This record gives sequence, C-alpha cells and structure tokens, in this order.
Amino acid sequence: MKPNDLHTPVNWTLARRAERMNPSVIREILKVTERPGIISFAGGLPSPATFPVEAMREACERVLRDDGPAALQYAASEGYGPLREWVAASLPWPVDPAQVLITTGSQQGLDLVAKVLIDAGSRLLVETPTYLGALQAFTPMEPRIEGVASDAGGVDVAALQRQLGAGDAPPRFLYVLPNFQNPTGRSMDLARRQALVAEASRAGLPLVEDNPYGDLWFHQAPPSPLTALNPEGGVYLGSFSKILAPGLRLGFIVAPRAVYPKLLQAKQAADLHSPSFNQRMVAEVLKDGFLDRHVPTIRALYKRQCEVMLGCLEREMAGLDVQWNRPDGGMFLWVRLPAGVSAIELLPKAVDRGVAFVPGSAFFAGEPDERTMRLSFVTASAEQIQTGIAALAAAIREQVQGA
Amino acid sequence: MKPNDLHTPVNWTLARRAERMNPSVIREILKVTERPGIISFAGGLPSPATFPVEAMREACERVLRDDGPAALQYAASEGYGPLREWVAASLPWPVDPAQVLITTGSQQGLDLVAKVLIDAGSRLLVETPTYLGALQAFTPMEPRIEGVASDAGGVDVAALQRQLGAGDAPPRFLYVLPNFQNPTGRSMDLARRQALVAEASRAGLPLVEDNPYGDLWFHQAPPSPLTALNPEGGVYLGSFSKILAPGLRLGFIVAPRAVYPKLLQAKQAADLHSPSFNQRMVAEVLKDGFLDRHVPTIRALYKRQCEVMLGCLEREMAGLDVQWNRPDGGMFLWVRLPAGVSAIELLPKAVDRGVAFVPGSAFFAGEPDERTMRLSFVTASAEQIQTGIAALAAAIREQVQGA
Repeated sequence: MKPNDLHTPVNWTLARRAERMNPSVIREILKVTERPGIISFAGGLPSPATFPVEAMREACERVLRDDGPAALQYAASEGYGPLREWVAASLPWPVDPAQVLITTGSQQGLDLVAKVLIDAGSRLLVETPTYLGALQAFTPMEPRIEGVASDAGGVDVAALQRQLGAGDAPPRFLYVLPNFQNPTGRSMDLARRQALVAEASRAGLPLVEDNPYGDLWFHQAPPSPLTALNPEGGVYLGSFSKILAPGLRLGFIVAPRAVYPKLLQAKQAADLHSPSFNQRMVAEVLKDGFLDRHVPTIRALYKRQCEVMLGCLEREMAGLDVQWNRPDGGMFLWVRLPAGVSAIELLPKAVDRGVAFVPGSAFFAGEPDERTMRLSFVTASAEQIQTGIAALAAAIREQVQGA
Repeated sequence: MKPNDLHTPVNWTLARRAERMNPSVIREILKVTERPGIISFAGGLPSPATFPVEAMREACERVLRDDGPAALQYAASEGYGPLREWVAASLPWPVDPAQVLITTGSQQGLDLVAKVLIDAGSRLLVETPTYLGALQAFTPMEPRIEGVASDAGGVDVAALQRQLGAGDAPPRFLYVLPNFQNPTGRSMDLARRQALVAEASRAGLPLVEDNPYGDLWFHQAPPSPLTALNPEGGVYLGSFSKILAPGLRLGFIVAPRAVYPKLLQAKQAADLHSPSFNQRMVAEVLKDGFLDRHVPTIRALYKRQCEVMLGCLEREMAGLDVQWNRPDGGMFLWVRLPAGVSAIELLPKAVDRGVAFVPGSAFFAGEPDERTMRLSFVTASAEQIQTGIAALAAAIREQVQGA
C-alpha cells in the first residue's frame, strides 16, 4: 500500500452539540460585505486608525531583545504575572491578581464559563437581545437559554424576579453586558445595576458580566461594574481588543475562588495558555500609563463617528417611521424599522444599494424582533457613513412603499 | 448601596464535566521543578536555544511596518490565507488549503475535535500510554476512554481489531501519535501504519492523528503520516511549537469535508480566530525555506542530548534492573523501573536529590503501569543530564534497597 492507495470514507458520528452549531449570521454577512464598494455597518471591527502600531513595534523589539526565549516558551496557564497584576490594579474594586485568568480574547472567557457552568439542559438567562458570540459559546454545552425582558435601560429587574420564581430549576447564571451593549449600544444606570445585583444576591443567581466596551465612553465613565457591587457574586470578563487591538486575541476573566480553579483547568485543556509573546508585548505597551494617553483618542473618534451617524439618521430617515437610540459610548446603535418592514428582507436590497448591516434577529435567544437592526459606527469613515445611511434610507423607503 | 456593600456568595452550580477536570499532574510537578537548583527531565519544554529570536524580530518589524493594521484587526476564523497555503504545501499528501484550520496551538485542535466528535458516554480509543493533554482535552466532553494495547512499535492492530469487535457502540475515533510519541518516544514503522490504516478503513473508524514531533527525527524522516495513507479517514493535527516556538500558540488541523465546517464553527465559538499578528509573523518567518535551514539545527541538538542521556543511563543504571528505549527522534524517552519500585513513590526522593521527571501513570487511560516514567532530554543541558541521571540512579538504588 502506497500513500493515497486508500480513499475510504469512515463513519464520522458528530456530537449532538455539533448539530446545534450553525454558521454565524454575522460571519456570512461579513463575507458579502467584503465585496469591494460595500459600505459596512455590519461588523464589529474597531477602527484600524486606533491601533497603536508604533507602540506595538517598539514593545516587540524590547520584548524580543530583553526577554526573547521566555516570551517564546511555554508558560503558566494563568497568564503572565505582570499582565495579571496590571489587570487587577486597573479594575475599580479590590482584585487579587490571583483571581485574574488571561484568556485568548474574551470570547474564550465565554467558552470557559460555558464549559465550567453549563450542563446539557441547564437553564441560562441572557438579556433581550444579547451578544451573538455569547449565544454561540454557550450553545455547544446544550443549555436551555431564556431571554429576560429588557428595555432601553437594560435588564428589567421585576421581570427577572418573576422569571426566577418560575421555571423548573435555578438558572446557572445571567449573562449581562451593562456598558454600551452589543448589539443595542444601551447601558444600565447605577440604580438599575444596584437593583439587579440586589435581586441576584437575594436569589443566589451568579452573574456573568461582560465588559469589552466600558472604556469607550463619550461623555463620562459608566457607573460601577456589577461585579464591583458584589465581588463574590459573579464572573467578570474583559478584553484588550477594543482599547489596543483585537488581532492580539487577549482578554481576561476575574473569578471568585469558588470557580477560578475549574476555569483554570478548562483553560489549560483548551489551549494550555494564551500566547506568552503577546502577553509580554501588551504588558510592555501598557507600562507608564499608555492607555491614559491612547484611549481618549479612541473615545473622541468614536464619539465623532457616532454623532455623524446620528445626524445622518435624522436627515435621511425624515418622514419614515424609523427609531434609533443615542448610545453614550461603544461601537453600535440599534434601529427599529417601520411596521411591516423586516430587517432580514431589507438586507439584500440594502446590499444592492451598497450598504450592509446586521439584522437584529440574530441577537435574540427567544422570539426575535424582526424590525430591528444593529449599526456599527466605528469601521466606516464619516463620508462613508453619510453615503451609507442615505442608501439605507432609500432601501427602507422602497420597502415601505412596496409593503 | 456603594461598591462592595454586598459580599454575598451566590449559588454556583458547576457543570458535571467540571467534576472530572483535575489539576494536571505535570502542572503540579512543574511547580516543584521551578524550585532553584532542580534539574528537570519533567516538562516538555523545547530548548530555548532553538528559538529563532532574530528571525522573529525581523518578521515582527516587517509585519508591523508593511501590514500593521491588518495584522492587528479581527480576521477570518479559518486562519491567515498564506499560512494555510504554506501548511497545505508542506504536507506529504495533496491537501487543499481550504481543509486547513489554524488553531491556537495543537492543544486547541484537540479541544475542537472533542467538542465536535464526543457526546457524553461516547466510546473513544487512545494508545497505551497516551498524551496527557489529549486526555485533558477529551475528558470534559465526558467520553468513556479506552486504552488500546500497544507495544514498543505503537498500537497493537490485532488487539484493536478485537476491541472494535467488542463494546456496545463503535468508538467515535482512535487518537494516535505515530511519531516519537509523547510520552514514550516510540514510533510506528510503515508496516504498522499500513496495517492500522487498513483496519481503521475496514471498520470505518476515524483516526485523529497528532504529529507535533514528526520533524524532530535524528537519522531519517519518519514514514508516511496515517492521514496520507487515507486522507478521508481522519483528522490530522500539527504544531509550530516544536519547530519555531511554543509561546506563539499556533498549530493547525487538516480535516476532510465531512467535519471541517463543524470544526470551524467550534473554532469561531472558542476564540473567534487565532492571533492574526502571530499568524502573519510566522508566515513571514517561514518564507524562503527558513525551516530547511533551521530545523536541522534542532534535530542535531536533540540527537546529541538524547545520546548524552542514553550514555548516562547505560553508565549510571548499571546493575539496576532498569529498562529504557532508544527513540529515533522527538523529545522524550520512556523508562521502566525495577519490580516493586513505583515512579510516583520515587518522585519525592528524586526531587530531594535535585532531579524531577513525570511518573508514567499520568499517561494511561486505564490501569497504569506504575513502574514507568517519562524523561525529557531536550530542556536540561548535557552537563545537567549527567548530574541528573546520576542523582536519579542513586534515588532508584535507595528505593530498591529499601524495598
């Protein structure tokens, strides 16, 4: 028998969870938007103008010169000590570096949480709507995911209380994104946060708090993280993707002692550790208060882009029954189309006119609101935003007239 | 309520799979061996002398200068096109780059395979002994793992055939490491590979072939990969950790069309994509046949270190009933202690004498052979190997006399 003598298909039996995995809607849409000339409000790509390329270049140089062999070697699953210390010190409540686990992007944090906290059939609560990537990370562990009623200010705490009283088992956790939420851009004010934490504590419900956008505020820093209000009550996820660069794939989990050891073991089994080189490079970039100088430039850019998009919406959507919110930070805003117009049906018409977005239905655990869509204001330029919103309005107008 | 008003523990209910996760024995041992002065044959750390620091530095410089924003942005889950093309072209059978999925180290490949192919209660076959990290990656998906009888030449194919005939369900796959296996250092010859692939094809049994060490041969390149003998019959995992550097966390999966889309979806949910910066850096380093010049230097170093260790074993173990093999490549050799001596009991005595190893029991899916141990010959220097093997022999001698 020589190589390739055999071409015998074998009996692949896929795991039951594989049946539940589906191609990401966003992913498929992004493929369309890669067509030249399409203005995309679809992806959640930070503006590359904000990437500190020169600071990275200098950090690479220093890390490889001073610490090359260690930066290229296997390392501890917990993460690089100085980076864990930086994370602990950067958070607005007392955090021991021993509680910090460096992850391969905060997406991996969601995967580890799912592995450690979800059994097949477990109840799980999420906001309505919620981050699609979280649904994708949780789904393979086969939970029953329930959306909690939410309004423009986030989770409806009274509805949560009723939902906790019903159901056949306590939910394993509530996944919540309090700052400039993906997909809606909405935030929870301090009163809502306090009410939510009080209810979660009363019910013994763990919170999984995801905060990739908290630093991207336009006017003032957001209120206290939920985890700061009750550090034993939840797991906190953070990311370097939006304040430095996503291509490094670095995020972190802060976890109480009740779950940290299991998250660490899941991390070790998942990829041994996050790249030691990247961790040292980021630790080097972060020294000497770099973010204090860098992040304000991102905030200013995104605030400007958001204002441009809001202005264009005012102008172009005039006379159409289209609604949208005014986020106080982050990367996204949330649009509701006129009655009878489905965002999914609108999308191909919009793409024909050269503009793309993500239909909101992708972000609902339960019954979707098909009139919703997510618009990112950070990737396209101000000029593209003007052209794109005008094209979007034309596509909506056509749908309304056709309806 | 101010921050930290509440310190209320909530009701963490861990997933059933979390109960099965245990701290890695190797990990705990590595902590001991970090004590200054301990000579460690325990870890599987490549020699840092083999890391091409200067080539990496130049590649970082070029990537950030010519392609900075793209290298730091989100990217496709499949991986960076030129790197996928390089991988496909480097393999000794026809591989379409579309079959290549870049992973965050080959450990992540094992995690993705587990998610896509294992249900709770699934039968799974592994070699005896097998790679501990694979057991850790598979275990969270709650399979029933069975060891297949193996000898110095790898999987015993007749035993495999009997095992396939027995059992209550067809196994989901056989996990096999044909080249310089971790932990034993053993390899399968061509005849054994052909017999194994023929039996797997006959039975319709998928193979998961792991090949992190194949390039580290001492005398001649190993025979054809199993996957080359039947490309539709399995999934192949590779790594850049042993030929470039582990701290970059880059590996790959080559998968047939029957499973690639699900592995890709699992990858997307796990960490979106492997670091785009690292992928571009490695693609840049690999250009112009770098490995053709670099890998022979690793082979020569490890061959020399292996010979030193074999020479020391001959000399120091004289008169003791200790057996060991002579690997043709890789990083490890496998030792069997005299009757009545347990490697687990030996370890603390050896550490007292300043030398560490990994007891073989950690690597068995079923009943362990407690007389076995794994020795790495690549991390310690030639001088340390001499001191360490002498100390190990003294510890064994003491145990034998005490027995």
